[in-house]
Amino acid sequence: MKFIKDLREGERIQGIYLCKHKQSAVTKNGKSYENVILSDKSGNIDAKIWEPNSQGIEEFDKLDYIDITGDVSAYQGSLQVSIKRVRVAGIEEYDPVNYLPVSSKNIDEMYQELLQFISSVKNPYLNTLLSLIFIQNTEFVRSFKAHSAAKSVHHGFVGGLLEHTLAVTKHCHYFAMTYPEVLNRDLLITAAICHDMGKVNELSEFPMNDYTDEGQLLGHIVMGSEMVAKAADRIKGFPKSLESELKHCILAHHGEYEYGSPKKPALAEAVVLNFADNIDAKMETLKEVFSTVSTNDLSWQGYNRFFESNIRRSGN
Amino acid sequence: MKFIKDLREGERIQGIYLCKHKQSAVTKNGKSYENVILSDKSGNIDAKIWEPNSQGIEEFDKLDYIDITGDVSAYQGSLQVSIKRVRVAGIEEYDPVNYLPVSSKNIDEMYQELLQFISSVKNPYLNTLLSLIFIQNTEFVRSFKAHSAAKSVHHGFVGGLLEHTLAVTKHCHYFAMTYPEVLNRDLLITAAICHDMGKVNELSEFPMNDYTDEGQLLGHIVMGSEMVAKAADRIKGFPKSLESELKHCILAHHGEYEYGSPKKPALAEAVVLNFADNIDAKMETLKEVFSTVSTNDLSWQGYNRFFESNIRRSGN
Amino acid sequence: MKFIKDLREGERIQGIYLCKHKQSAVTKNGKSYENVILSDKSGNIDAKIWEPNSQGIEEFDKLDYIDITGDVSAYQGSLQVSIKRVRVAGIEEYDPVNYLPVSSKNIDEMYQELLQFISSVKNPYLNTLLSLIFIQNTEFVRSFKAHSAAKSVHHGFVGGLLEHTLAVTKHCHYFAMTYPEVLNRDLLITAAICHDMGKVNELSEFPMNDYTDEGQLLGHIVMGSEMVAKAADRIKGFPKSLESELKHCILAHHGEYEYGSPKKPALAEAVVLNFADNIDAKMETLKEVFSTVSTNDLSWQGYNRFFESNIRRSGN
Amino acid sequence: MKFIKDLREGERIQGIYLCKHKQSAVTKNGKSYENVILSDKSGNIDAKIWEPNSQGIEEFDKLDYIDITGDVSAYQGSLQVSIKRVRVAGIEEYDPVNYLPVSSKNIDEMYQELLQFISSVKNPYLNTLLSLIFIQNTEFVRSFKAHSAAKSVHHGFVGGLLEHTLAVTKHCHYFAMTYPEVLNRDLLITAAICHDMGKVNELSEFPMNDYTDEGQLLGHIVMGSEMVAKAADRIKGFPKSLESELKHCILAHHGEYEYGSPKKPALAEAVVLNFADNIDAKMETLKEVFSTVSTNDLSWQGYNRFFESNIRRSGN
Amino acid sequence: MKFIKDLREGERIQGIYLCKHKQSAVTKNGKSYENVILSDKSGNIDAKIWEPNSQGIEEFDKLDYIDITGDVSAYQGSLQVSIKRVRVAGIEEYDPVNYLPVSSKNIDEMYQELLQFISSVKNPYLNTLLSLIFIQNTEFVRSFKAHSAAKSVHHGFVGGLLEHTLAVTKHCHYFAMTYPEVLNRDLLITAAICHDMGKVNELSEFPMNDYTDEGQLLGHIVMGSEMVAKAADRIKGFPKSLESELKHCILAHHGEYEYGSPKKPALAEAVVLNFADNIDAKMETLKEVFSTVSTNDLSWQGYNRFFESNIRRSGN
Amino acid sequence: MKFIKDLREGERIQGIYLCKHKQSAVTKNGKSYENVILSDKSGNIDAKIWEPNSQGIEEFDKLDYIDITGDVSAYQGSLQVSIKRVRVAGIEEYDPVNYLPVSSKNIDEMYQELLQFISSVKNPYLNTLLSLIFIQNTEFVRSFKAHSAAKSVHHGFVGGLLEHTLAVTKHCHYFAMTYPEVLNRDLLITAAICHDMGKVNELSEFPMNDYTDEGQLLGHIVMGSEMVAKAADRIKGFPKSLESELKHCILAHHGEYEYGSPKKPALAEAVVLNFADNIDAKMETLKEVFSTVSTNDLSWQGYNRFFESNIRRSGN
Repeated sequence: MKFIKDLREGERIQGIYLCKHKQSAVTKNGKSYENVILSDKSGNIDAKIWEPNSQGIEEFDKLDYIDITGDVSAYQGSLQVSIKRVRVAGIEEYDPVNYLPVSSKNIDEMYQELLQFISSVKNPYLNTLLSLIFIQNTEFVRSFKAHSAAKSVHHGFVGGLLEHTLAVTKHCHYFAMTYPEVLNRDLLITAAICHDMGKVNELSEFPMNDYTDEGQLLGHIVMGSEMVAKAADRIKGFPKSLESELKHCILAHHGEYEYGSPKKPALAEAVVLNFADNIDAKMETLKEVFSTVSTNDLSWQGYNRFFESNIRRSGN
Repeated sequence: MKFIKDLREGERIQGIYLCKHKQSAVTKNGKSYENVILSDKSGNIDAKIWEPNSQGIEEFDKLDYIDITGDVSAYQGSLQVSIKRVRVAGIEEYDPVNYLPVSSKNIDEMYQELLQFISSVKNPYLNTLLSLIFIQNTEFVRSFKAHSAAKSVHHGFVGGLLEHTLAVTKHCHYFAMTYPEVLNRDLLITAAICHDMGKVNELSEFPMNDYTDEGQLLGHIVMGSEMVAKAADRIKGFPKSLESELKHCILAHHGEYEYGSPKKPALAEAVVLNFADNIDAKMETLKEVFSTVSTNDLSWQGYNRFFESNIRRSGN
Repeated sequence: MKFIKDLREGERIQGIYLCKHKQSAVTKNGKSYENVILSDKSGNIDAKIWEPNSQGIEEFDKLDYIDITGDVSAYQGSLQVSIKRVRVAGIEEYDPVNYLPVSSKNIDEMYQELLQFISSVKNPYLNTLLSLIFIQNTEFVRSFKAHSAAKSVHHGFVGGLLEHTLAVTKHCHYFAMTYPEVLNRDLLITAAICHDMGKVNELSEFPMNDYTDEGQLLGHIVMGSEMVAKAADRIKGFPKSLESELKHCILAHHGEYEYGSPKKPALAEAVVLNFADNIDAKMETLKEVFSTVSTNDLSWQGYNRFFESNIRRSGN
Repeated sequence: MKFIKDLREGERIQGIYLCKHKQSAVTKNGKSYENVILSDKSGNIDAKIWEPNSQGIEEFDKLDYIDITGDVSAYQGSLQVSIKRVRVAGIEEYDPVNYLPVSSKNIDEMYQELLQFISSVKNPYLNTLLSLIFIQNTEFVRSFKAHSAAKSVHHGFVGGLLEHTLAVTKHCHYFAMTYPEVLNRDLLITAAICHDMGKVNELSEFPMNDYTDEGQLLGHIVMGSEMVAKAADRIKGFPKSLESELKHCILAHHGEYEYGSPKKPALAEAVVLNFADNIDAKMETLKEVFSTVSTNDLSWQGYNRFFESNIRRSGN
Repeated sequence: MKFIKDLREGERIQGIYLCKHKQSAVTKNGKSYENVILSDKSGNIDAKIWEPNSQGIEEFDKLDYIDITGDVSAYQGSLQVSIKRVRVAGIEEYDPVNYLPVSSKNIDEMYQELLQFISSVKNPYLNTLLSLIFIQNTEFVRSFKAHSAAKSVHHGFVGGLLEHTLAVTKHCHYFAMTYPEVLNRDLLITAAICHDMGKVNELSEFPMNDYTDEGQLLGHIVMGSEMVAKAADRIKGFPKSLESELKHCILAHHGEYEYGSPKKPALAEAVVLNFADNIDAKMETLKEVFSTVSTNDLSWQGYNRFFESNIRRSGN
Repeated sequence: MKFIKDLREGERIQGIYLCKHKQSAVTKNGKSYENVILSDKSGNIDAKIWEPNSQGIEEFDKLDYIDITGDVSAYQGSLQVSIKRVRVAGIEEYDPVNYLPVSSKNIDEMYQELLQFISSVKNPYLNTLLSLIFIQNTEFVRSFKAHSAAKSVHHGFVGGLLEHTLAVTKHCHYFAMTYPEVLNRDLLITAAICHDMGKVNELSEFPMNDYTDEGQLLGHIVMGSEMVAKAADRIKGFPKSLESELKHCILAHHGEYEYGSPKKPALAEAVVLNFADNIDAKMETLKEVFSTVSTNDLSWQGYNRFFESNIRRSGN
């Protein structure tokens, strides 16, 4: 199979692609056809099935992996595939890894590191709460590991939520070591691990990776706080004050009202979590932007909305 | 007993007052004494116990109702009571109504009206949810009826939370009748009734009527949303989408991020609830501000922060 | 005649359309032709007259109703009419109602309702002022009934200004009943009826329905206030203070400086008018947005600038 | 008579002062007395009439010029006059100039300069409009010359409105000479002369110099625009477009919505008028702030809200 | 030679143009070609060299003046030149004035005016500083005269920096004459002359006229302040306080933090410089916008971001 | 000597204090006296010399260390010293450490740590620049070690500038290790060490510790950038681009225009420096606020402007 980014005008291709979108349409002459978007981890391409009822064109749905034969042509400056034959591929015929963007780090190893941070939390209530969610709730664990941290900006790949969570947790550990007079490490580490867990329900999993209805209406901040509330309810004697502090850290982790936090950070741990989250988001964004810029290329990359500035690499 | 606002310099008084504050202090000469604030519904007054260990001065705590004898004097332009004798009053000796600001409307009658609105909600899930909280949870009901809607601004009196909730619900009913094409009445009425219920835990009851720790850290918006979540969990088959819509209305009811809403109103019902809440708050504020201004007094009352304007009554 | 939205590629059509735009142009080869936009209440379509000086092509101007014969073709994904014959239609040949968006409610009945509100205003000065403008000034009345309330957003149709004014007046009546302690009903109802009357001169009438020069330079807020000033001047003994209050309500009805109000609401009536105006604008906007969404379609409709949020219908 | 700023503790004084405030009060012992504020152009001083019904204490009202005899004493760090005798002074006994802050420039000479600018306006409609207001309306002229330009900030003295108007007009003349390609001098000069004329009704005259009710509700911007409207109505054939342009310049002269302009400057003349107004306000403010700072004193004068900065003189 | 704005489809052209951009590319079939942008003072046009290695196609670089032969065709609505022959033109073959936008005023005469302002500065330190930079530093003088004042908005032409600087200096002279009590003319004139001199290094010279790397990272405000610092270092006894004042005026000349000034104006001279700079920028912008609008054309020109308003000419 | 915080009414004291303020004044009776503020590291106290010309009262100036004898009395609720005898103390009679707030860490040890960071910078240009300033410029080094990092908020003590700089440098080292793909460690460490060095001239040294004139006019951000410029000028071959990057990091380290940065961070290093600076400022502020709150005291400390929130300690 040829990756989509490598297709060229005039080729005949055959291979398995993910069908990301499918919709029937009618030409001006009244003939019906199918609009399809084919996808793999290298990109997307428009495709048409001009003869949907002809031989060789089998039934399939959006999000199916389909084995297609077709011709690549150019239309108004973009490439397009005219599909001649199509059938749904069997699960053993393709490797999903080729169809989704994936973290460059080993997901299981990262999860092991996260578990070590969990075991370093000495407060029994917080430790139990983390175990309930991040160890015993296996469906949550599976989904957490498969999630991205965002729909489109930084960490928008399988494992991205885990990679970001681990990085933020490490930063929090560093600051807890540096400012022990004002930071409660157990609270801070727990808040770091939980801070974005609401995203498991705010965003659907790949390949869709889009906002859920619940996500649109509530947002991962409030959803994460509620997950803490429900877990704490299951732990006998969980101190009310500690529960409020943990929920506060999650609620305040965007730092400003206009970024969707209903509370400004009022605890030292909430202040630090907000910083750690923000700097990892910014560094990962730069990493992604600079990934296609060679090391000593000091040219300006254009205005970036996240940084509200034109940005460039620094020299070495 | 004489109300505090009627005390005059030079009087000797005797009566029962609420002790709102009590703290030991030491004079510059090293003599210990007690700073006390006496309170009734007409106001507060500073008091001193210069001889805390003398005969006639019994033990008491903050928030006790105390029967005192003392002399009123003036100190740096304010009146002050020098307490000579004090004892804790028995619960049968005073009527709390004299010590707390109370709604001018009948609390039980208002609650009956609220129950009628609840019975008008046809959707079985929403109706059950309202019953769980506003009928079956008797401790919640007691507290809801005794609460203010605010620490210091509008509706800052016993029954204020109920009075405000009922007014907002009526407005929502009016709008649901006016715009049936876009408003789901059941959802809107339920959201109106629940919108401020988190205040039951955000503010402590009278006589303190101050932010709780949980209230400071989380806020009544998130607390109310979580109360819905826990109630819905107890109702079999409660539709996920309906739960999210109801929580969204509560989360968005302040209308803007900078007022503590983590989401902007995205549903018609959330838009209307925000309006209904805001206009009742503003009208009640004006009612309270104008309560001491005679009907045809058109003089300017000074800058009001809530309105961001100097305000005055209109003529008739 | 076929409505524009029903035209199809390849058809030959004949019918009367409103000419919304007309401009001469020259092809790259130096041949002159005419660019025309044809319009009816179902939409607009581009048209060309490639042989402007040929037989059958009569003179006409922008905003004429023209009877055309032509061929529908597709060009760069849009339909286009090549006009072969054209003549100006006589006034008896078409019904303007087919060419303009119109309120779905009966305009005369709505005006009767408005007149009843006027007659309910007891204050003789305010009642006289309303009569001068809304009864005796027949040219104003005609124009007011024919106006939209906006160029493009909510209530952008014939009768829209009246429909919106009536809705706002009803809301104000409701609030005057609810908060009689702080609201002067006569002032509030008068302000509601007058609040947008400046739009009669800010926007031109249909079919243009665009900002006038005066509208751009002054805005309907100041224009409405000035109309009150001139009417009050004609009423002997009109109290200065009452005139200022009424003008203030109009000036402040957008609520915030950044929305073009030179004053923030300083009177209870101005506060309520701002709310009533805003909520009717928002509800009508949702009605228009949701008009093409079926009742139980909970899909997200995309970001809406007025609400600063993605929006969707709620379930039932 | 001794100016108030020169009074010293222990003196007995006799002289005529303006009574700026008068209110009856009761001592803690129930004895009634009068609180009075005496004023002259050097400042204000508190005074008391402890025996209001004794011989020698005649009736008088707020804003009377009163001839008093009394003793100056110190109370809580401020001086205070105990009034022993008082009577209302005759109009021939005092010179109002001693009681009000007055422009340091000759008011009649400044007005002559303004009239020359008026005569330089060639457009007959604008020239007539200026004549109607600034020449023929003698009551307006008298009041305009006696007005301040502000309640408390810059130009807060008799003649201040004229002085500021003249300075702004000169600046506009300078810019009209500099940028003739984009500026219509007649329109700009007319707008400059009229820009603050609404202040004649927004602020009451000295000695009160406070916001009128109409001023609070409408503001001088809208009031000035309405004055133009009414004058233009009296001039046959006044072009509608010219009237709108002139009103626009007045409406937009604060430059930003948040400063009370309902429109942003959309004409070159409105842009320049906004600048000219602003710079004269700022320079006059600095002149007043620096008036008590010697020329080479480079010390910082503290944070100034108008400049949003700590300010100081520059060296020479 | 034909100016680019006059080229028409189907023409064969021959002439010298500035090559503003040049980049190799590959067709989908793997054939390499060259993308070129040709430029003269009337505009830009895309060009292609489809046979880069054929006879008649000589080597050239970006920013060369090239003599080309080619055919003009239309592609997707825009004109395009297919270059058949090309060679680098000799410096004697073209007049750069045809390729760059240039001030309509005489550059040397403007510079003479600026020198007269310099000689009017009496303070010896300031006069020496100006001489060091604007007289003795001949490379700076040459570059200053050739610079624009902006990349794209007002004064974006050769001589624009000088023209703007001179206009601002004249305004400052006018204000120094008007407000001598608060303005130090020598400081103000010096600051006006120096205020934008950092642009000599912030923007590259024509024909590029784009931000330099240093310009992007530091901005002309800080760069100008540093130029003052280095010049003052070379003048023995330059008073520290005077140097700080001059640098402050430059740093604060954008007036607001959000426009890139690290300090708000704290000196009267800084306030005036900010005004003078702003009004010249606005008037020049209007001059440029209105340059293609005839004098009595009152039509609206559309929303202008600099003015945050729709704008139009005023009548006469 | 008794520390000021331990003085009590009625005492006669004798000891050496720093004279922080001295000003002559005149009583209402015309007698001259001296207002003095005495200071040590525990606080300040008002003092009076009622008989400045009597025996035992020697000459002294502001900022002298003076040996006084006097009586402590209470006046309007505050203590006051009536000075009977005074003489200037010899430099050997007191230890300045008792009169100034000082870092709790060892200043020389911290400086050694900073020097190690300097030696870890491999880039020869950056290393040389750091050496020029932080090693060879001994007067700078002395002053840097003695400076606070602020006038009143966090790190407002001797050694505070060094303590803050070191903490920020350590954070930057941590992030350089964590994100090597996007961060140039040498540039980042150098920027961290230099970021606040402009404060050496923005604030005067203790005991004044107040803004200098230059500091007010320019600010430490621009001053630090200029110090880099001048040092780089002395280093042969210092790359222009590297100098701009380093200056950019300093200019942008406040992160937002409204905090006085003329540029937003455009390099990864500038982003990180802004974070590191901000988090150390916030953690140190909390440390100072919480220093008087015992570890498990969860009470709310009141609204803190830096955090824009009420704040409290978290539990353990």
